[in-house]
Amino acid sequence: MAVEVVYRSSRDPERLFMDKAEADRHDKMLELAESLADVLLKAVPSLNEQQVEDLGIYMAKNRDIFARAFKNQPDALNELSAADTE
Amino acid sequence: MAVEVVYRSSRDPERLFMDKAEADRHDKMLELAESLADVLLKAVPSLNEQQVEDLGIYMAKNRDIFARAFKNQPDALNELSAADTE
Repeated sequence: MAVEVVYRSSRDPERLFMDKAEADRHDKMLELAESLADVLLKAVPSLNEQQVEDLGIYMAKNRDIFARAFKNQPDALNELSAADTE
Repeated sequence: MAVEVVYRSSRDPERLFMDKAEADRHDKMLELAESLADVLLKAVPSLNEQQVEDLGIYMAKNRDIFARAFKNQPDALNELSAADTE
């Protein structure tokens, strides 16, 4: 038995990471997901909480692809179908 | 009376533009909106057609802000509340 250090995001306390950088990435992803959920709910009020949460997490997990799509490569979104199973 | 040139996107034939560049921007916006609607519907199947269309158009109209948010400035999304009335 030994004491060990684990890391977690306060936004998702149940998920523990051995690696601090990984915990940090997870926290940043959730932060973006929450902000996205907020703005999307305001923009399309008929959505429910679960839907905007799912949308936010999906887009935040694929942020690089969406960044390129919004910048100037809409075709980048085609990569998502291939990555869907992830 | 005179004949004049007007421009439109084949994706939205009812909207006519006097300026070709503006018609082109509108077409590009709708193209991105459609691609977004497709991927979001696959990602969150409980959404309906109208919701993903609204989401796609909202994000495509604000593509610069979303591009920055997805790249590395999640705070850029705060600008959307101010621009909501647009």
